[in-house]
Amino acid sequence: MAGMPKNAVAIGVDIGGTSVKLGLVDSKGRILARETFQSGRSSGRETILAGLSACVGRLAAEARRRKLPLAGIGIGAPGPIDVERGIVYFFPNLPGWKNTPLKKILEKKLHMPVRLDNDANAMALGEFTFGAGKGVSDGLALTLGTGVGGGIVLGGKLFHGPAYSAAEIGHLVINEDGPRCGCGNNGCIETYVGNSYFAREVRRRLDAGEKSVLKKWLAEGKELSPYLTWQAAQKGDAFACRFWEETGAHLGTALAGLVNILNPSLIVLGGGIAQDKPRFLASVVRAIRRKAFPIAARSVKVVPAKLGTDAGIIGSAALVLV
Amino acid sequence: MAGMPKNAVAIGVDIGGTSVKLGLVDSKGRILARETFQSGRSSGRETILAGLSACVGRLAAEARRRKLPLAGIGIGAPGPIDVERGIVYFFPNLPGWKNTPLKKILEKKLHMPVRLDNDANAMALGEFTFGAGKGVSDGLALTLGTGVGGGIVLGGKLFHGPAYSAAEIGHLVINEDGPRCGCGNNGCIETYVGNSYFAREVRRRLDAGEKSVLKKWLAEGKELSPYLTWQAAQKGDAFACRFWEETGAHLGTALAGLVNILNPSLIVLGGGIAQDKPRFLASVVRAIRRKAFPIAARSVKVVPAKLGTDAGIIGSAALVLV
Repeated sequence: MAGMPKNAVAIGVDIGGTSVKLGLVDSKGRILARETFQSGRSSGRETILAGLSACVGRLAAEARRRKLPLAGIGIGAPGPIDVERGIVYFFPNLPGWKNTPLKKILEKKLHMPVRLDNDANAMALGEFTFGAGKGVSDGLALTLGTGVGGGIVLGGKLFHGPAYSAAEIGHLVINEDGPRCGCGNNGCIETYVGNSYFAREVRRRLDAGEKSVLKKWLAEGKELSPYLTWQAAQKGDAFACRFWEETGAHLGTALAGLVNILNPSLIVLGGGIAQDKPRFLASVVRAIRRKAFPIAARSVKVVPAKLGTDAGIIGSAALVLV
Repeated sequence: MAGMPKNAVAIGVDIGGTSVKLGLVDSKGRILARETFQSGRSSGRETILAGLSACVGRLAAEARRRKLPLAGIGIGAPGPIDVERGIVYFFPNLPGWKNTPLKKILEKKLHMPVRLDNDANAMALGEFTFGAGKGVSDGLALTLGTGVGGGIVLGGKLFHGPAYSAAEIGHLVINEDGPRCGCGNNGCIETYVGNSYFAREVRRRLDAGEKSVLKKWLAEGKELSPYLTWQAAQKGDAFACRFWEETGAHLGTALAGLVNILNPSLIVLGGGIAQDKPRFLASVVRAIRRKAFPIAARSVKVVPAKLGTDAGIIGSAALVLV
């Protein structure tokens, strides 16, 4: 933030469906101290608010002990929010949060500035500030998981759009006749690279007669997941390798369109499946090179995310530090 | 431009495949004087440059006569260009322009600032400055014609992307298994709403047995075009109406994705087919409402372009005036 001391720190809060993770993060994106507590369906809103206050109190004390100025609290929220006013519309996996003015509640209770954004945006800002996109001012970040979240960074800042609902990259349509998506549309990116697609489609093809070591593993009781498929690919299983490449090509096709629209300098891909460079990432890049306009295609790099499981904490802190 | 006098005027140049149109445009987007000359395949580059100089000379004299300060020349170019350096890579429909440093040539010859951009960007800026998007700072404009061009306006300015190759909205993919596009990809928006798709697909369906007054008209020697199909729809021809609605739905699906990504306040649609409000435009809007995220879908309006055939001149002048 403009005018912030160089040694300013912030508290980053990553609210998840099973736990809430907090960190005291310095201006270089390093986590100086951590706190965590359980959330989960049984925790009511008040329990989580109390947990947040206690953890923030301890981290603020740690900042004081280190004589570091605390700039505020950044929160990455796992659901739709009003970024401008800091209101949680609801959390899909946590009960009791409907229309909670979280920013107002915490600012009143904790006497420091609070910024709220969705977790995919926070992750994007974190990667472009401290991670794989450090020093790059224009680009996209996608988190590939159960769903596909995304953030757009323009001129070093998150792009929210005038109604604060931009950057839903997972819901760009790549096939209007494609599979039904949870958002109500068909053929969104998410329906082609989300974890549930992955498992369902691998299963379908195995049932249709594809030969693969996965059949044996599944018969042994292993659970079908992107990770299991990746293990098969690592062993040279032809079906698994092909499936990874094909998934990368789907994502690459979608990204080629986005490259034509946004001309990003960098695309950061987070989540387990993005760590597979030789097959998945290479296939993404091939599709972009082949399908986007040459100038835009040449000017974009695609890299895996760097911040790993700390992306939520560091990205949320970046909401306050940038 | 910052610091420009309120009564500043600019010369807008619309370079087309058959003629070059110029206008002296004031700060309210009104055309005070016009010039035009033939271009076309037989005109070499030097002929066109000479024509440009002569016309600019007369329009500059007109500005002097009216005692209006002339801010410069804006040019909308019908082909790929280097916006930053003002270089024409080539013009698909005019020979001899390969790698022409047009900005440099004209600034040296005419002693005033020259700005070059592609014609779709110029049109977008014109509409958001003086036309259907006047007063709106964030949105998209698409020109639906043989191809589909587009421009993105963010914070009242054209969004070019770091390598100046953003906003190729016509080449967003809506069906990766769709028809081959001239750009090398499959299923781009352009392949679903461009004029050539329109004619080809209408023909295919008529040949496949669709009943329509169009069959009679074609037998009478009329040429198949979006306009002819529109005339049929105006007469209540069921096939033609359905086709217009379906085309709108294709575009709306693509725009729903873009609405999820960019969260525009306004989408301006230019070109003949966008003037069909009850079928085409209504269908576009229905698809966006149904397929984009509710907040983003609610916050976007879709309107036809306003500047009509003057969009090129006025939009090009806006490159200098904004």
